[in-house]
Amino acid sequence: MTEFNFKIKKRCGNARLGIVLTKRGKINTPAFMPIATQGAIKFTPIEFLNDIGYELILSNTYHLLLRPGLDTLLKFGGVSEFMNWKKPILTDSGGFQVMSLSKLRKINKKGVKFQSHIDGAEHILTPENVIDSQNIIKSDIQMVLDECTQYPETHENVEKSMKLSLHWAERARKYYLDNAKKNYGAQFGIIQGGVYEDLRLESIEENLSLDFEGYAIGGLAVGEGYKKMIEVVNFTAPQLPEEKIRYLMGVGRPKDIIESVYRGIDIFDCVIPTREGRHGNAYVGTDTLNIRNSKFENDSSPLDTESDFFVSKNYSKGYLHHLLKINDPLGPMFISLHNLSYYFKLMKDIRKNIDLGTFDDFRERFK
Amino acid sequence: MTEFNFKIKKRCGNARLGIVLTKRGKINTPAFMPIATQGAIKFTPIEFLNDIGYELILSNTYHLLLRPGLDTLLKFGGVSEFMNWKKPILTDSGGFQVMSLSKLRKINKKGVKFQSHIDGAEHILTPENVIDSQNIIKSDIQMVLDECTQYPETHENVEKSMKLSLHWAERARKYYLDNAKKNYGAQFGIIQGGVYEDLRLESIEENLSLDFEGYAIGGLAVGEGYKKMIEVVNFTAPQLPEEKIRYLMGVGRPKDIIESVYRGIDIFDCVIPTREGRHGNAYVGTDTLNIRNSKFENDSSPLDTESDFFVSKNYSKGYLHHLLKINDPLGPMFISLHNLSYYFKLMKDIRKNIDLGTFDDFRERFK
Repeated sequence: MTEFNFKIKKRCGNARLGIVLTKRGKINTPAFMPIATQGAIKFTPIEFLNDIGYELILSNTYHLLLRPGLDTLLKFGGVSEFMNWKKPILTDSGGFQVMSLSKLRKINKKGVKFQSHIDGAEHILTPENVIDSQNIIKSDIQMVLDECTQYPETHENVEKSMKLSLHWAERARKYYLDNAKKNYGAQFGIIQGGVYEDLRLESIEENLSLDFEGYAIGGLAVGEGYKKMIEVVNFTAPQLPEEKIRYLMGVGRPKDIIESVYRGIDIFDCVIPTREGRHGNAYVGTDTLNIRNSKFENDSSPLDTESDFFVSKNYSKGYLHHLLKINDPLGPMFISLHNLSYYFKLMKDIRKNIDLGTFDDFRERFK
Repeated sequence: MTEFNFKIKKRCGNARLGIVLTKRGKINTPAFMPIATQGAIKFTPIEFLNDIGYELILSNTYHLLLRPGLDTLLKFGGVSEFMNWKKPILTDSGGFQVMSLSKLRKINKKGVKFQSHIDGAEHILTPENVIDSQNIIKSDIQMVLDECTQYPETHENVEKSMKLSLHWAERARKYYLDNAKKNYGAQFGIIQGGVYEDLRLESIEENLSLDFEGYAIGGLAVGEGYKKMIEVVNFTAPQLPEEKIRYLMGVGRPKDIIESVYRGIDIFDCVIPTREGRHGNAYVGTDTLNIRNSKFENDSSPLDTESDFFVSKNYSKGYLHHLLKINDPLGPMFISLHNLSYYFKLMKDIRKNIDLGTFDDFRERFK
């Protein structure tokens, strides 16, 4: 049976300081989730995420189905145990892959037929079997199967897609409630509707009637740009139930996160800190430093003098530059880790400022 | 000025329990050195080597000259500081690269002219400038420039090469002593002569007359095989001065190390634990497990139940198999690290057994 509880401890405007209790432990919100798509944070020992202080990570049902597969995860008692994380984990369903791997899938009302991008084997995802899979994966927060459209897309196509997601959401919620005893984690609905307010509104109404444990805003950070993204958050967040947790999927840069917390969002995931880190870009203060740049060759100053994280304070820009130059995976790993510590600190500062009632000042300063 | 002191604390047969004191700290011997050719242990955060307990690592003058280059190392105050290791470091001169990159070099009596394997730029190594470089690199143990022959090679060619190495050794020792105030580390001579006893003997005599701080046996592990390698060690080691430290270059597998300690060798380096680790091969007990093998897919047992090292006891064979399968650098990193912890434990066991006077039993048990 599920054990999931979200409490708002304090508010500062629309920003919320909260805490989630799950079987595997607590999560302080607003929170950012590092991404372990295939059951590993790319290049990164999970021990370092523990050191930084992370309480929640994200994995992906679609990818886990392919490798290591459900048989293995059943044997290991879940992906969190498999990867030696042991703390809470959220799993996306595969909805995003329905979009990004669109050449390999066929969608109908029943579900999605995929060809594995690895070995071509056929897999079928349905709103129901995704729940079974997530119970084997033992995810603490389980996203429903949805379809996510690209940007730009016509009103007609986004409407069709949103309605299919709604149909799946109804089936998913029914199956989840009908099999309540089997459920490991909480079930989150996903608001779709692209950049169209009427469609977002329809998606919200129907999703709210299904009374999920939490709500995500999906279908953003797919090319619509900052302005449109924030417009959708601005319109959608206030329509979500006040007492339930809100997750903005796939967003984003530090500024996006602060602006979304300001509008009432609680949890986030994004590839940016790790992907940028792998490309040698480090977040320091309000800058992004490209450590590949030859100007850092002889720079013996620490990567980030403001940080207490061992990578940021013990390693010089010059040495990290050298690691990138000799193509040792240590370079991408260290800069990814630094960025993850930067994001963790950002969320900690956000929480502290909500707690102190100074979040608006914090937001202004960050601008 | 150099600070280098080697003391033998105990003997068990020809095996020696010793301790080296250097400016950057102590080294208990017999010791194995992990390899940081380019100023990084491939894939491996140096913090983990500290956790394991290593006291000495090896880097390479030739590779460091090319990247990051002497200007950078001068600015950083040495390679050990550059890479955030801070403990003692030994540097090979480039002699092995003279052999392995033979298409890119021209040798004459003066020294070696190299073309960089990276950008084609020309570099010259001489017995003298290698010392200057190693003083900028600030290596605690500096190997002289030598030439290392392939196996098999004729007596005539090995003799010619050994004599060239001797000529270089004389010049190196003279330059080192003439500039004593500038020296950061100790200088080690290298015994060459391939598998020919008469040539080894000549090399030993001349090298001993130069009175280096320590002696290496070079030119082995180049294809001659276990039997010939041990024969050379068997013949050479007893001819080296009893009170000086002895280093067997590029050797080897656990058995090679035990058999060489038995014959009086004190320090070792070898790519085997890290290279095998990167290929997915883990040393466990007296076995080598190929973790890529599909039989480990659902194996939830820890990699090594006998080990206290976090990778070995916390990570399952099944998860490591998964990491190798998805090609995340974490897989090679974790198995390399496990192997390095295995090697460290092996050396610790060797030291303990010499101390207890039970080394011969230990050696028998390991067979």
